[in-house]
Amino acid sequence: MGNNQALKENKLLFEGSEKKVEICIDDQSDNLRARGDDYWRLIVSQSEAEIISKISNQQLDAYLLSESSLFVWKDRFTMITCGSTSLADAIVYFLKDQPTDKISSLIFQRKNEYFAHMQPSSFPQDAKKIHQQVHGKAFRFGDIDRHYNFLFHLDRPFSPPTNDTTSELLMYNIQGELAEMLREKNNTSENIREALEIETILPGFHIDDFAFKPFGYSLNAIKDQLYYTIHITPQMESSYVSFETNVDLASSNSNVLLQLVEKFSPGSFDIVSFNDHSAKNIPPSYHCSSKSKSDLSCGYSVSFYYYTKNKKHWLKPYQFSL
Amino acid sequence: MGNNQALKENKLLFEGSEKKVEICIDDQSDNLRARGDDYWRLIVSQSEAEIISKISNQQLDAYLLSESSLFVWKDRFTMITCGSTSLADAIVYFLKDQPTDKISSLIFQRKNEYFAHMQPSSFPQDAKKIHQQVHGKAFRFGDIDRHYNFLFHLDRPFSPPTNDTTSELLMYNIQGELAEMLREKNNTSENIREALEIETILPGFHIDDFAFKPFGYSLNAIKDQLYYTIHITPQMESSYVSFETNVDLASSNSNVLLQLVEKFSPGSFDIVSFNDHSAKNIPPSYHCSSKSKSDLSCGYSVSFYYYTKNKKHWLKPYQFSL
Repeated sequence: MGNNQALKENKLLFEGSEKKVEICIDDQSDNLRARGDDYWRLIVSQSEAEIISKISNQQLDAYLLSESSLFVWKDRFTMITCGSTSLADAIVYFLKDQPTDKISSLIFQRKNEYFAHMQPSSFPQDAKKIHQQVHGKAFRFGDIDRHYNFLFHLDRPFSPPTNDTTSELLMYNIQGELAEMLREKNNTSENIREALEIETILPGFHIDDFAFKPFGYSLNAIKDQLYYTIHITPQMESSYVSFETNVDLASSNSNVLLQLVEKFSPGSFDIVSFNDHSAKNIPPSYHCSSKSKSDLSCGYSVSFYYYTKNKKHWLKPYQFSL
Repeated sequence: MGNNQALKENKLLFEGSEKKVEICIDDQSDNLRARGDDYWRLIVSQSEAEIISKISNQQLDAYLLSESSLFVWKDRFTMITCGSTSLADAIVYFLKDQPTDKISSLIFQRKNEYFAHMQPSSFPQDAKKIHQQVHGKAFRFGDIDRHYNFLFHLDRPFSPPTNDTTSELLMYNIQGELAEMLREKNNTSENIREALEIETILPGFHIDDFAFKPFGYSLNAIKDQLYYTIHITPQMESSYVSFETNVDLASSNSNVLLQLVEKFSPGSFDIVSFNDHSAKNIPPSYHCSSKSKSDLSCGYSVSFYYYTKNKKHWLKPYQFSL
């Protein structure tokens, strides 16, 4: 998706896997939404991304970015960026003119990357940069020799509201009919949205989406204080699809994760959840390759699961063009 | 192991996973061994590594390097380097004053890395650099979302001698008693060699080994035209052990791979083999996560296997120091 430094090396390589931050403030006199589009455009630009479009409702603003998404509520924001963006720089910029004693929660994450060598920084470097502004702790969920998820959190006690859950589904190496269609050039957002059948999975959301050229797709969806977002990097050499939501999948009895795994048929996928206790219904063709969890001192119970598709057949080597 | 650029960022992080090249020449008037130590010191220095020591026999010279190993026969050499070395530069340097029509085989490999962001180049960049000197083909064995092995080979028909086999065992995330002992600082090469009990596995080799400070170990072993080599990066944050040999494991009926897997108890390991048709006796606690093979046009049948340990328990997240 988007124009990006990473594209310079090879047009077929794009780092879909994301960096993400969620910051909550505890200040009745402040309203993050009231800071306005220009303020958020400035924050987004610090990470080398751009705002493409915006939808809003009574509760939140949802910005679609050239590299992923930004959601802003009165008292919190969630920013997700992919490619070779520098989200840590945007966080440091935000923190610099923000009374840090009013920050009740800050969680920064990075997934393992396909092309770590194209990144402007490593997770330990990012974590140290943020730590210089606000004292925190840093973790890796998952084994170092498999998939993993890095997490930095503000080291301050926090009691998230009971409905404050997040579920992330990160799918790698997508296969099958939908993947093939997404790899075709110049799809429209309409035909991608239709192929995703997302309306049947999570109904009633207001949707803003964008089809990138030659391929790639991003979608933001909002309903009251709820959001979900989908980002698709379909190219064979680095395919990746992420889904993320603050819908409580346990109490809504949603099977969305299972439905998406069946649609995209990934070679492997990770689930990262925050205070989400929904049952994980995983197709039997997948194998849990590692799982890690912890009740963090910042008030969230975090789980990480890494699933791989069982493979019995011999894989033909992939040939590079030179 | 060794002093290395990568150590600058964090003393605990060291990229053990290797780059490797094997070049065969077909020129009765040439003798690679006769080029002498100063010549090979120059070649090694092009990759930012250094020669530490040397052993020889009638058939070959085996150099232990600050980052891995170099073996030189009359008509071929194998060079393996780890850390953030630039092996492709050494290859280009070798090729520049070498009649390229006398090169009968060139195979360059890179493993997937723990810390790709610390590398001076990516595999596609390396492959393109070598391709500018000698026309070749480039492949990835293994799925992009799991472990994999990159391979570039000279695009020229070659008939390897029937006894020309190579087996590589690459172990990640080592655990257990031996791993704990290796993580202790200031082990001697004598006590590491004893703990490895290597003499009972492949007997009768002449051994040259080195224990790095504070930890890390390298071993070269030779017997007639045969070699094996072991490189150990024990530190918890990036543990890695490689074993490689040109001993024909099928005809020697050796169980060395199985014995090493049992000793190091890795979280995952890869086996890469060239014209090796030995049976793979893998402990049942491991799961074949992917396998790939191909009969390459350069005359070698190459197989890649990626095994992961079955994990039923929850993993505690790893906490970074900030």
